[in-house]
Formats: sequence, structure tokens, C-alpha cells
Amino acid sequence: MKIDGTPYRSVWVDQDGWAVRIIDQTKLPWSLDMLRLTTLEEAAHAIRAMQVRGAPLIGAVAAYGLCLAARRDTATEALEGAAATLAQTRPTAVNLRWALERMLTRLRNTVRGERVRVAYDEAGRIAEEDVEQSRAIGRHGAALIEEAAQRTGRRVNVLTHCNAGWLATVDWGTALAPVYTAFERGIDLHVWVDETRPRNQGAALTAWELGRHGVAHTVVSDNAGGHLMQRGQVDLAIVGADRVTRGGDVANKIGTYLKALAAHDNAVPFWVALPSSTLDWSITDGIADIPIEERAASEVTTVTGRAMDGSVATVRVTPKDSPAANPAFDVTPARLVSGLITERGRCAASAEGLHSLFPERA
Amino acid sequence: MKIDGTPYRSVWVDQDGWAVRIIDQTKLPWSLDMLRLTTLEEAAHAIRAMQVRGAPLIGAVAAYGLCLAARRDTATEALEGAAATLAQTRPTAVNLRWALERMLTRLRNTVRGERVRVAYDEAGRIAEEDVEQSRAIGRHGAALIEEAAQRTGRRVNVLTHCNAGWLATVDWGTALAPVYTAFERGIDLHVWVDETRPRNQGAALTAWELGRHGVAHTVVSDNAGGHLMQRGQVDLAIVGADRVTRGGDVANKIGTYLKALAAHDNAVPFWVALPSSTLDWSITDGIADIPIEERAASEVTTVTGRAMDGSVATVRVTPKDSPAANPAFDVTPARLVSGLITERGRCAASAEGLHSLFPERA
Repeated sequence: MKIDGTPYRSVWVDQDGWAVRIIDQTKLPWSLDMLRLTTLEEAAHAIRAMQVRGAPLIGAVAAYGLCLAARRDTATEALEGAAATLAQTRPTAVNLRWALERMLTRLRNTVRGERVRVAYDEAGRIAEEDVEQSRAIGRHGAALIEEAAQRTGRRVNVLTHCNAGWLATVDWGTALAPVYTAFERGIDLHVWVDETRPRNQGAALTAWELGRHGVAHTVVSDNAGGHLMQRGQVDLAIVGADRVTRGGDVANKIGTYLKALAAHDNAVPFWVALPSSTLDWSITDGIADIPIEERAASEVTTVTGRAMDGSVATVRVTPKDSPAANPAFDVTPARLVSGLITERGRCAASAEGLHSLFPERA
Repeated sequence: MKIDGTPYRSVWVDQDGWAVRIIDQTKLPWSLDMLRLTTLEEAAHAIRAMQVRGAPLIGAVAAYGLCLAARRDTATEALEGAAATLAQTRPTAVNLRWALERMLTRLRNTVRGERVRVAYDEAGRIAEEDVEQSRAIGRHGAALIEEAAQRTGRRVNVLTHCNAGWLATVDWGTALAPVYTAFERGIDLHVWVDETRPRNQGAALTAWELGRHGVAHTVVSDNAGGHLMQRGQVDLAIVGADRVTRGGDVANKIGTYLKALAAHDNAVPFWVALPSSTLDWSITDGIADIPIEERAASEVTTVTGRAMDGSVATVRVTPKDSPAANPAFDVTPARLVSGLITERGRCAASAEGLHSLFPERA
């Protein structure tokens, strides 16, 4: 997507042909800093410190992290160790493990002398496939926005939570791919952007990427979505996912479940957009089986933003002796999800729905 | 309640016998500043700028504001003008209008020479009655916490949203009165404190007052409550109210509705604590009939806290060209409320329930 008219991706290989470039998302929206990753450790740090985040993008950057590891040592045990390091950076997103498995399988079947070249090929393919999948999600999801435009005869209001835009993937996004696609088709739309405390990915990233691309949007506190739906100000909600079970339960950014409840209570369609790499076919019950990452309390007790003097500052919002808890994801039961938008099309959030799109998994 | 062992109230008459003292709640938790209000304008400003907030406290301060107005001019038209000024400071809370009506009725029936004295008498009575009502709410609500302690045989986890503690009333609080009462009775309890963006009354005020009184608590982002309930980590939720209809619909801080939905979905009891002055007998349908205050976008686009150098700083969390919307309250339909806790006891959130406690309104 575009930043003030210039097309960008969220991860790419440097002009030197091997270093990995990313946008440091912890600096957005205050500054647009490009980082250059040259080692496995830098790639692992980028994921752990959330310089890159979003389930699909984490998968792509992890794949490139294995490329950097292979440049240092192409031995199978070294690559497996590197994959283990990368896998431990974040526990909830399934794409990370999916991308690493795919890379390892490919590299194990490659002679050592070819492994660096093949690693870059495969990581590049993972990235390109992610772009194509996101584009397809955009197409399948844009139809929902077009239908809402035709039904209402006015500007369509879409609510989203967290950032599942192009910054969370390699390009286009998952939840925002339908928004960008509908926008390119000239449909009049507007996005309600949940702030998404504690890390403010909505206020900092979604608002920034929509604004830079030229899409109308309004930031609201995470508390506001239910009220907006109650007053008829949301035509549909679209969110991304960090992991979706074979039964259609959705692990996504903390607070997603609350918006799904509100959508259900107000008959607002609630869609979840994801590439198939986000599907975890090994589990059915999201609440019982998906580990939920508990992040640092400091993400809750502090907020980072731009101070009046222009500097980026972190302020504490709680009394200094008050503890905080910070579960990073929650699970939305399939019964609250109107449907899933995947690169193969839309389906019900259920085993039957998923099997209709992915018969090879049935 | 106590601040580090010393009993305080949130509004009181100064030692000089006429000026009105308040705690400047916009400065909490960073500093404990006491303000001295000496004019109608200062009282109106204190309410409008949310130096005092919380429906019951607003009512008490408005009553004292009329005392300050009476000191300047005891003419009926002057008092009515002063009441109109105070009534316009905040649109949603019904206690404000209730207290002003009560004061005006009393003053209209008083000869001018007695009006200043009678005004202070009546405002003092409103404040004392508020304390007594809060204490009674505490008694009626503490039974719920005691029952949960007996049922579970372990520490009771209470979730609350915004600040409905002693800072929101004259003393004790509404939602937190049962917590303080149960705490004084020695029941092992812990409070999940919703941060309550955009103004962070949970992180700033509830965490502060619980901590200063010695009550165990943990701050969480507003997004976390559904997840906590899903995992069995909330035994009951108690919130306050800004206005409750005769049918039991509850207007309260934005985001309350989302927590009520989550409580309902997880069979967690969801109680609303209020003095009867918060009841609006004139309306039934909360969603259709309660005006929702839209506050400044800057409350959403910025966050105030303590910077690393110890100063209190405001930082912007959104891109500078992203607009924001800020509805301050939402309406929780009566069907999602387990019951109401009033100074007269507990009842169902329904016309029948309310009439059983307030037969004179039937």
C-alpha cells in the first residue's frame, strides 16, 4: 500500500541482495524508520520487541531470519536451532511456526551448498504468497463492503480492532485488505479504528496506514464500539486473527471478543479475515487449547506518544504501586463470528465451513 | 475512606464555614491537590473540567455551587440562573439536576434573609445523605461478595469499570462501597480495575483510592475483561451508574455495555450500584431517551501521565491528522444487568424490581 503516494511493503530484501529491511513499527506513527536486519539475533529481536508484528508478517520475517542464520551456518542442527530461537519469540501466532516448518522442510531436502540460495527463494515465496493471499482476501471481503453500500445507499462504516492492515502482513493486510480493495474501487467508506490498548496498534498503526493511504477513518477508545453499534453507526466489523481453530474459534488481539459480543447483540456482521496459514488444524477448542501470551505489565501502566515538545515520551498512567496484568489476546468463540474471509473465499466459522473451502483437510 | 490511614471526603466545607473544598481529581494519581471553590463560576468549572466527577459527587458539588451563588445574590431569578448554569455543565448524570431541583425547591420556600443559611444546610444534608446512602449500598452489596467468598472458598475477584468509588461520591462510593464494606469485614478480595480510556478514571482514580486504602487490585486494559471472565477469573462485576431508567436500563461510563455483555456470556453476575438520586423515573428506554455526552476528541488522541523525569506530561497517541470521536457514556440494557444495589436494598433491573423497593413511585 502507499505512504503518501509511494508504494511500500512491510518487509523486503535490501539492494545488497541479502540483508532484510523492515519498518520499525514501534516508532510509528512518530517516525518512519527503516531497519536493516543482518543476523538471526536481530530478526528474533525484531519479532520479540514487536518492531514487526501481525501474524502473517511475523511468519515472513521469521522465514527471512532463517535465511540470515543459513548465511552463518548451513548445518541442519544449526538451522533447527535457529528455528527454535525464532519460534520462541511469540507464543500465540501460528503463522510463525507454520513458516519455520515450511522453511525447515525445504532446507532439509536441499544439499548444504544450495541452502542459502534456496532459503532466500523460499522466504521470498512465502512473502509473495502472503501478498497474493492478502490481495485475494481483499477481493473476497470487498464484496461485503460493496453489498453494504448497495443496501444502505450511503457511506459504509467498518469497525476494526488492532492492526490487521498492510503493516501486519507483507502488503494489503487481512482485515484491511477488503477496505483497501473497496477504496480502490471507489466505494465511499469510513473506518472506526479501535485504539487497541495497551499497545495502541489501532491508534498508532491502523490510523497511520489508513491516513497515509488516504482512507477516511476515526479513532475511538476501545470502550466505544458497543455504543457505536447500538446506535447503528457500524455496518460491519472486520478483524484479523492470530490463530483460528478447525472449529472456527478465533484468537486475536485482546478485546476482539468484546466487539464480537457487541456485534452479535446488535446484529452487526462480524467477519474475521485470515490467510490459511493462520488456521491451526490441530485444535478445535480455542479457549482450552490456544496459549495466551501474557506480556509485560509496563505496557498497561505506561503509554508512549509524542510530547508537546515533539519528542517521543513514555508516561505512567497508574499509581506507582498498582500492579497490572496484560493478557495480549483473547478467544472469540465461533458462534459469535459471522464468517471467515480467506484467500480461497468466505465461509462459515465452523468445521463444515472451513472444510468446504479446504476439502483437503476434511 | 482513607488516604494512607487518614480519613477523607471528596467535598467538604472549609474551616471558614463557607468556601467549598474539593480534591482536584484531574491531578490524581500524580498529586493530591485540594482546591478551594469560592464562586458559582469556580464550582461550575470544577464540574465541567471534571476536577470533580461521578454522578453523586457532581450533585453534591452543584448544591454547594448554589450556596456560593446565594452568597452573592439571594434573588430567586439569580438562584434559578445559577442553577441553569450548573445544570449545563454535564448532560448525562441525572443527580446534578436532582440536586439542583431539590435546592431550588427549598430556597423558593425560604425568605431571602435565610436563604444562604438554608442553602448550606440543604447542601450539607445532600452530602450527608449521600454518605448514608453509599454506606447502605455498601452493606447491601457486601453480602454479594460474602456469598461469593463462601461459595468459592477463596479470594473473591471483583471487576469494576471507571471510578465509582469514594471519589465519585462524597464517601464510600457506589460500586466500591460493597468492596470497602467487605474489606472492612475482613473478606479476602481483589479488584480488577479497568483502565477506562479515554480519561483513565480506573487507572488513575480507582487504582489510587483502592491502593491508598489498602485494597488488593490489578489494573487491566479495558480490552481484558472479557478474557478474564472467560477464564473464570471474575466472580462478580460491580459498576456505578450515571442514570438508570424506570425500566432498569443503565447509562454509565463508555465501555460498561461491553463488560455487561461479557458477564452475561460467561454467567458472571453483573451488578449496578446507585443511590436513588441516579434513578430517572421519567424515562423507560435508556437507548432512546438518555442523551450521551460527546466529549473532546483530545481525550482520545492524548494521554496524560507522569513522565520519567517526574513531571506530568500529555502525549499524543494518534497521527496528528487522524480525527477521533469520544462518546462518554453508553447504555446497558436492563436484560444484561443481574440486579441493582440501592440504599434501600437490591432489586431486579426492571420496573417491577424498582417498584418493589420504591413503592411510592409505582
